[in-house]
Amino acid sequence: MLRQLFFVTSIAVVALANSQRKLSLDFPTPLLGNTSPGSVWPQPESHVSTAETFPVAVESFMFTYASKSYKCDLVYEAFKRYGAIIINSAGDQKLRFRPLTTPMLTGLEVNLMAPCEDYPSLDMDESYALDINSMAVATLTAKSVWGILRGMESFSQLLWESDSGQIVANKTNIIDKPRYAHRGILLDTSRHYQPVNVILENIDGMAYNKINVFHWHIVDDQSFPYVSTVYPDLSAKGAYNPITHIYTIEDVAEVIEYARLRGIRVVPEFDTPGHTTSMGKGQPGLLTECYTGSNPNGNYGPINPTVNTTYTFIQNLFTEVKSSFKDAYIHLGGDEVSFSCWQSNPAINNWMKSHNMTGDYKKLEQVYIQQVLDISAAIGYSYIVWQEVVDNGVKVKADTVVEVWINNHPDNELAKVTALGYRALLAAPWYLDYISTGEDWKRYYSYEPSNFNGTAEQKKLLIGGEACLWGEYVDGSNVTPRLWPRASAVAERLWSPETVNDVDAATPRLHQHRCRMVQRGIPAEPLHPGYCKHEWRN
Amino acid sequence: MLRQLFFVTSIAVVALANSQRKLSLDFPTPLLGNTSPGSVWPQPESHVSTAETFPVAVESFMFTYASKSYKCDLVYEAFKRYGAIIINSAGDQKLRFRPLTTPMLTGLEVNLMAPCEDYPSLDMDESYALDINSMAVATLTAKSVWGILRGMESFSQLLWESDSGQIVANKTNIIDKPRYAHRGILLDTSRHYQPVNVILENIDGMAYNKINVFHWHIVDDQSFPYVSTVYPDLSAKGAYNPITHIYTIEDVAEVIEYARLRGIRVVPEFDTPGHTTSMGKGQPGLLTECYTGSNPNGNYGPINPTVNTTYTFIQNLFTEVKSSFKDAYIHLGGDEVSFSCWQSNPAINNWMKSHNMTGDYKKLEQVYIQQVLDISAAIGYSYIVWQEVVDNGVKVKADTVVEVWINNHPDNELAKVTALGYRALLAAPWYLDYISTGEDWKRYYSYEPSNFNGTAEQKKLLIGGEACLWGEYVDGSNVTPRLWPRASAVAERLWSPETVNDVDAATPRLHQHRCRMVQRGIPAEPLHPGYCKHEWRN
Repeated sequence: MLRQLFFVTSIAVVALANSQRKLSLDFPTPLLGNTSPGSVWPQPESHVSTAETFPVAVESFMFTYASKSYKCDLVYEAFKRYGAIIINSAGDQKLRFRPLTTPMLTGLEVNLMAPCEDYPSLDMDESYALDINSMAVATLTAKSVWGILRGMESFSQLLWESDSGQIVANKTNIIDKPRYAHRGILLDTSRHYQPVNVILENIDGMAYNKINVFHWHIVDDQSFPYVSTVYPDLSAKGAYNPITHIYTIEDVAEVIEYARLRGIRVVPEFDTPGHTTSMGKGQPGLLTECYTGSNPNGNYGPINPTVNTTYTFIQNLFTEVKSSFKDAYIHLGGDEVSFSCWQSNPAINNWMKSHNMTGDYKKLEQVYIQQVLDISAAIGYSYIVWQEVVDNGVKVKADTVVEVWINNHPDNELAKVTALGYRALLAAPWYLDYISTGEDWKRYYSYEPSNFNGTAEQKKLLIGGEACLWGEYVDGSNVTPRLWPRASAVAERLWSPETVNDVDAATPRLHQHRCRMVQRGIPAEPLHPGYCKHEWRN
Repeated sequence: MLRQLFFVTSIAVVALANSQRKLSLDFPTPLLGNTSPGSVWPQPESHVSTAETFPVAVESFMFTYASKSYKCDLVYEAFKRYGAIIINSAGDQKLRFRPLTTPMLTGLEVNLMAPCEDYPSLDMDESYALDINSMAVATLTAKSVWGILRGMESFSQLLWESDSGQIVANKTNIIDKPRYAHRGILLDTSRHYQPVNVILENIDGMAYNKINVFHWHIVDDQSFPYVSTVYPDLSAKGAYNPITHIYTIEDVAEVIEYARLRGIRVVPEFDTPGHTTSMGKGQPGLLTECYTGSNPNGNYGPINPTVNTTYTFIQNLFTEVKSSFKDAYIHLGGDEVSFSCWQSNPAINNWMKSHNMTGDYKKLEQVYIQQVLDISAAIGYSYIVWQEVVDNGVKVKADTVVEVWINNHPDNELAKVTALGYRALLAAPWYLDYISTGEDWKRYYSYEPSNFNGTAEQKKLLIGGEACLWGEYVDGSNVTPRLWPRASAVAERLWSPETVNDVDAATPRLHQHRCRMVQRGIPAEPLHPGYCKHEWRN
């Protein structure tokens, strides 16, 4: 009688859910206030702390360089950001506490042991060591600026507000480094335009979760918001609105700089030959004309792989993209190519006949993708592709990264891709655009990426994963609470040791972390009944 | 290969969904900008308009009373609100357009044909007539202030922004009244505390959708945020936090006044005898002590129905509630009473024995609820109860309203409840806390409440319905986009004629309405790929 059965006809979902209104003796324990004070999310490789706490001198807190430390603009900017976070964490109470007897935590000394770097990369070193000793002296050491950034995030999470409202930190020693080098979040700015300030807000969220890649699925069938200097018609004709729903070169630069300061790579995806309807609007002749019988029917299919103009276009566009986006990698897409339009087009079929591939549209797809890969490589790009490229037998460079997204035994696909010697990214279990009632983060958290058949060498070829929030049903109104804290579950899976996998142990820490994000200005949604000390908009 | 299979173990959901990443030839048409300019949501009973448009004199627009109109503070406040909405709708472009040849729409003349009323009620008259004639003269007539409020909302929706950025309105005639008298939204402020400004924002949303009841599920097991003057310990000990997570008497008054100005009733729910854990914390002796064997085990069950102090408490609390909340109705709950704690308690069993009801816990529940109903009636309250009260055979007053929430053939339950002669509310198909990927609003929209077996008299006893957003997974961070525009589907189902039920016809209107809500400051989530002219946070 309390079980409810729903049918969602449009997407064939059957949800057999228990009652929302729980029996009074049986309701789940709410998550209340500080559930895991001073815990760090994602959990460090080693985190030892004692019950001893030191009050934090919030109003006079100082970040300083150790005497032998290298200095760096990235570190200086982080000093400012985390200084503001610490001040803000204290709310109105920051001036009340001036204990005289206990040693106070008055600052963090940062020791960067190597010269600064400009841009984060797949190979960056994110390890760090952090210590708050019994004299309330806090030190952070790292071999690269990226480790310093990760360590400062951890340090800021060590500070917590006691019941009396005082900001304190425990005596702590942390030694930390990530398990996987590529920990990404995909946002899709084509199905809906995502305003720049919403993107920046989510880059803040990524930093708070030690996510280090923003996979920017910037264009797709529905709209082309990227403003190209070489091909201005692409956004002029392909954006939802050519003035208000675009990313100018300055917008792109702002996003990249904002991410760089937080040690986050921005990897753009220009998906071809499918997912290109909007691209075709501003580039006549690019897409295949679909035919009904012997006449064009007004529809367009994937990019036309049989004409040279296609490759000139790709070369010019990607050369521009390479100069705008600083990362060594581009995501080339390559997924979900429909053959029906190619099949209908006489010119395509004639070309295939003259090239001895009559009827073999997979081969045609290979021809296209091969050339795009070669162009990208010649420009100097390393590349990521969706799994179909390899599934369809395209010859790719040895250093290609293959992203596994189809949620039909992704473990088998990882085994296959790594057996071929390619590096792999896992996205399939973490499609956050799929929603359901309840605590789906537990499912994301419980998926162990390395559980596939393969040698130790193969396991090493899995370089990380991505949480994907496709844009069909999200825009500025709801994208941030839909992403957080669900993506936090993926962040910990990809950063922390494999052994950190207990959902029950993670729950109070994730609640604490969610409340921390809320206090920092990220409208992360609740996990479960309960409350945060500082609620969103209260 | 593109189908994805998910298992959510915690709530037994199996979702078999099609791919999120559509084939490029097969992606759904995005909803772009003005999809149904000047359409009104929910759709009026009669709405006739022509293609002829008049520019609106936005910057000098005037609301005026007709010469014979009654005047009213509620109307005056609405003039101010809708004046601001009209000015805001024009954005930066309001001063550009000064056409000289076309007649301009310069104002709306309001004719209230009856004296003002203070508070909205179940019996209020919400009908109105609205006209924009060929001389660009706009008039609104209604027999009550509530009709004027509904008509002003419709009028504001007739104005739309043309592609050139000019605000215009079509020649229009509308005759309108609601299909059902009770069109409610339940928000739950116990599983999560919902900040007052978030409640007010959603009352705005209700007004934009002609929802006329805010069902305030104010307390439950998890927390008791209502501050009682007679029993201050209820919130002092039962709220999540007795200072920051409460509704003071002033907060309650603010919510009621904000709703009153918009013609929206506030019906509080104080659910008993179950769902009362938090209530027990501040009122020792109220709840039943649960036993293991012959000893109390520290847990508490439903309210103890066998002691007189219980009824004194209810009488005092509800008397206070009656003076704070102005509506004639209270929701008394009565759902999901677990018997196991009563069964374990020796004193309860002894009392039952001495009252000749040994082992009959349904009878015990009846005894409790009967007295609560009698107390409520004596105070002067009419009441709403959840369906179990009637299912369990409690004798209720003839004017009781029974709310059907269990989603197991709610049509049969409606048939049963109305056959017994009670009025009914339908909530079962509209539990918006259940979420799934895709356009679930279509399912809400397609549920026809009157499709149950019964006579014409029985059909009349169905007085409306409610969209319920239980609070387990929503708070200020996400409650508003989760509610809107999904609740808008229910709003149209309950307001518009039964024949207005075509999902495809509703889609462009709902997109337009969603974008309108966004522009007015409600972060309503997107329905589908596409864009609004004015995006949230862009």
